[in-house]
Amino acid sequence: MNTSIIRYVLGQVLRLEGLFMFLPCVTALIYQESSGFAFLSSALLAIILGTLMTLKRPMSYTFYLKEGCVTTALSWILLSIWGSLPFYISGEIPSFTDAVFETVSGFTTTGASILSDVEALSHCMLIWRSFTHWIGGMGVLVFLLAIVPLSGGSNINLMRAESPGPSVGKLVPKMKLTARILYGIYFFMTVLMIILLLIGDMPLFQVLCTAFGTAGTGGFGFLNDGMASFSPYLQWVITIFMILFGVNFNAYYFILFKQFGKAFAMEEVRYYFLIILSAVTIIFINILDMFSSAFEALTHAAFQVGSIITTTGFSTTDFNLWPQTSKCVLVLLMFIGACAGSTGGGMKVSRFIILFKNIGKEFHSYIHPRSVKKIQLDGKPVEHDVVRSINVYCFTFAIIFCASVLLISLEGHDFTTTFTAVAATFNNIGPGLELVGPMSNYGFLSDFSTWVLTFDMMAGRLELFPLLILFHPTLWKDLIHQKRRKK
Amino acid sequence: MNTSIIRYVLGQVLRLEGLFMFLPCVTALIYQESSGFAFLSSALLAIILGTLMTLKRPMSYTFYLKEGCVTTALSWILLSIWGSLPFYISGEIPSFTDAVFETVSGFTTTGASILSDVEALSHCMLIWRSFTHWIGGMGVLVFLLAIVPLSGGSNINLMRAESPGPSVGKLVPKMKLTARILYGIYFFMTVLMIILLLIGDMPLFQVLCTAFGTAGTGGFGFLNDGMASFSPYLQWVITIFMILFGVNFNAYYFILFKQFGKAFAMEEVRYYFLIILSAVTIIFINILDMFSSAFEALTHAAFQVGSIITTTGFSTTDFNLWPQTSKCVLVLLMFIGACAGSTGGGMKVSRFIILFKNIGKEFHSYIHPRSVKKIQLDGKPVEHDVVRSINVYCFTFAIIFCASVLLISLEGHDFTTTFTAVAATFNNIGPGLELVGPMSNYGFLSDFSTWVLTFDMMAGRLELFPLLILFHPTLWKDLIHQKRRKK
Repeated sequence: MNTSIIRYVLGQVLRLEGLFMFLPCVTALIYQESSGFAFLSSALLAIILGTLMTLKRPMSYTFYLKEGCVTTALSWILLSIWGSLPFYISGEIPSFTDAVFETVSGFTTTGASILSDVEALSHCMLIWRSFTHWIGGMGVLVFLLAIVPLSGGSNINLMRAESPGPSVGKLVPKMKLTARILYGIYFFMTVLMIILLLIGDMPLFQVLCTAFGTAGTGGFGFLNDGMASFSPYLQWVITIFMILFGVNFNAYYFILFKQFGKAFAMEEVRYYFLIILSAVTIIFINILDMFSSAFEALTHAAFQVGSIITTTGFSTTDFNLWPQTSKCVLVLLMFIGACAGSTGGGMKVSRFIILFKNIGKEFHSYIHPRSVKKIQLDGKPVEHDVVRSINVYCFTFAIIFCASVLLISLEGHDFTTTFTAVAATFNNIGPGLELVGPMSNYGFLSDFSTWVLTFDMMAGRLELFPLLILFHPTLWKDLIHQKRRKK
Repeated sequence: MNTSIIRYVLGQVLRLEGLFMFLPCVTALIYQESSGFAFLSSALLAIILGTLMTLKRPMSYTFYLKEGCVTTALSWILLSIWGSLPFYISGEIPSFTDAVFETVSGFTTTGASILSDVEALSHCMLIWRSFTHWIGGMGVLVFLLAIVPLSGGSNINLMRAESPGPSVGKLVPKMKLTARILYGIYFFMTVLMIILLLIGDMPLFQVLCTAFGTAGTGGFGFLNDGMASFSPYLQWVITIFMILFGVNFNAYYFILFKQFGKAFAMEEVRYYFLIILSAVTIIFINILDMFSSAFEALTHAAFQVGSIITTTGFSTTDFNLWPQTSKCVLVLLMFIGACAGSTGGGMKVSRFIILFKNIGKEFHSYIHPRSVKKIQLDGKPVEHDVVRSINVYCFTFAIIFCASVLLISLEGHDFTTTFTAVAATFNNIGPGLELVGPMSNYGFLSDFSTWVLTFDMMAGRLELFPLLILFHPTLWKDLIHQKRRKK
């Protein structure tokens, strides 16, 4: 294994995080908050350490799938632990476990919090929490690919390990340009949202937190009542942007280059909107008599559906009090998730489309055994490897899910709480039902359970394999073998 | 499609059911119950109608997979509707919907009941309920293959559609002999259990009901408090036989022909016992302080684990009151189910083994991309087709499961009730948690929900495809096309 490139990339990631931390530093300066020193020291230390790690160039820039996975997993772990330092050092989150949970929840764009009173947090902490969503949404390694020269290697394996979805392709032949286009679109849409929120008379600080959370489909709140106090205009702007950030970014690329036909023909995007439309309709009818006007019911239904399917996790109302059918629809949406190649989590719409088509194919073969039909997506045949890896992904997902439910059940809470706590963290959503509902938080859990859910958030964001591969004995055997050979 | 063979087999099934109904007739005679006339009339009518349907021999005895599936599905539907007539005619279950639910629950070996007071039922009704478990356990078509001359055709497709598990093989080259051996083992084990229960001083009537329910892994109770009042000896006999009936019958075949090595080498059976052992241990520790002695806790833990993993559904205690971890383990066991080729339901241990091995293979390919590894089960390579159909099975399972949960959620009960009601019927277990817990019943559900769960029980027992294929438009298009051509 090419360990020198892993060391090099980790150094770059650390240095980058240090630079990112200047945003909370500036915030602390503006609001005159002493917690800013926690950020300043963490930032400087990260930059120094990161620079030291990148002094020596790697021997080769070659990334095989294995290196891509390991690098991604280690980068995210480093990012999270370092990112939690300011919370812990400043004492604003006194428990290290909780600080890591909160930071992982941020970077993985989950938005689950252990804080019962977010409003007590200082401004620099709040902006950092939300900013981690923005960084994690499009991915820190993709960002790195856009700015750092890593040419000559097969960086696609790095991007593949970090980007969500069953099959990651380049938009353009050059990896660096692909990464730049993606971040360009991401940045532009975030700015657009900021402007629209400012028009709605929201204070700038809240605008930034909201925009970062929406763009990354994160969902950390900064008010104790979520977004219940926002005007309908603001709620709709957020709804629309949540849904837009859940769209496969390839669609925006097509639109950018005026290939509108291609953008609108994307099956995943079509089904994504179809699912949203169906879910909003069902919930709207189901909750109609709970609100004073149909418009209010529609606002809440659309907001909540957008929030859950894109795995953002903002809330305008306590949907834990909604009727059972609405809650079941929301739990289902948790698993479906957003489009591949978006900033959202979950299992992704395209995976479900391929699975459905596979079932249709099997049925057809029962009736016409000799017919040979290949599954197609967007008019192109889906490779057998993709179908196979989706299957394996789903079962690994199910196994980790069940194991987590079992471990969380040791706490002794009701089944709904246990089940949705895992569903909401593993799918990177945030709020679940009952004790972990939108008006509650994860603070009551034991340290053990907090670590289990932290693992789930990370595994969910990295789509299982990059993280799990770290635990594979063969990897370590190979590494030890390699070290020995060198000696 | 060969419709004449379907008609012929349906006739045979109906006639057979008529003959089976003589058992409740005799019971009614012994206990002098007037409800016996409902059975007598149903039985006679079935025999007459069945004989009429089988007068004309089919044009060909060829069974393709399609015919196998359609015949199996229609046979089971006919069997269930006809089997529910005595309940309805006698007025002992006044609602037709409920009567069908109860009968489907019987034949599919689910054991979920809509009755709040089973002890109010007459003896002939009780024995018929339990007897349907015994018939459904090994399968009515397998029985038919054992006694009716259907030679010349590829009857394996009939058996394949009815028998549970990912890959159904013949024990011996001749289908008829395979079916006879299976029923021979089944009959012998049932008799053995009857003897052991009689030794434990149980009245004969109860012995028969218990043995039928255990052998078929059904689980209809005949006392309002389940099996709580039974002696530890009886509870252990039932526990052991439940577990034995959940073993792949191929193992017994090997033992019968003194191939002990082969029997004990069966991976599925080994993992099945390993799962049972682990589950019993976890639950035993978890519930230890709820009971007065360790032996009592162990008895209940073993009984409940055996009952749920084999999808029998008997209960000696209200496990709905157990701690959350134990309940989670039981819910997990519901999905795992028993071995393939047993009388149990669920998704089957062998499917999970193959899925696990498939995940291992995928991981290995991440680290060593060029290695070619094939999955093996019992030392033989698992065909790609088998893996593919397991994948498709699992996703179809998940889809029907989610759709059912959504439909049942319209009732507005809590999530745990909704979720476990579907899990317990779809996996053919019987009792779930909360409102459908072991000391409750399904009687409170609306007619609509009752039909949804009836469908789930049937789909679960027939392992989805044979039933679902009835709803495939291509099948009907082909049939209409065929009719037109004849004209």
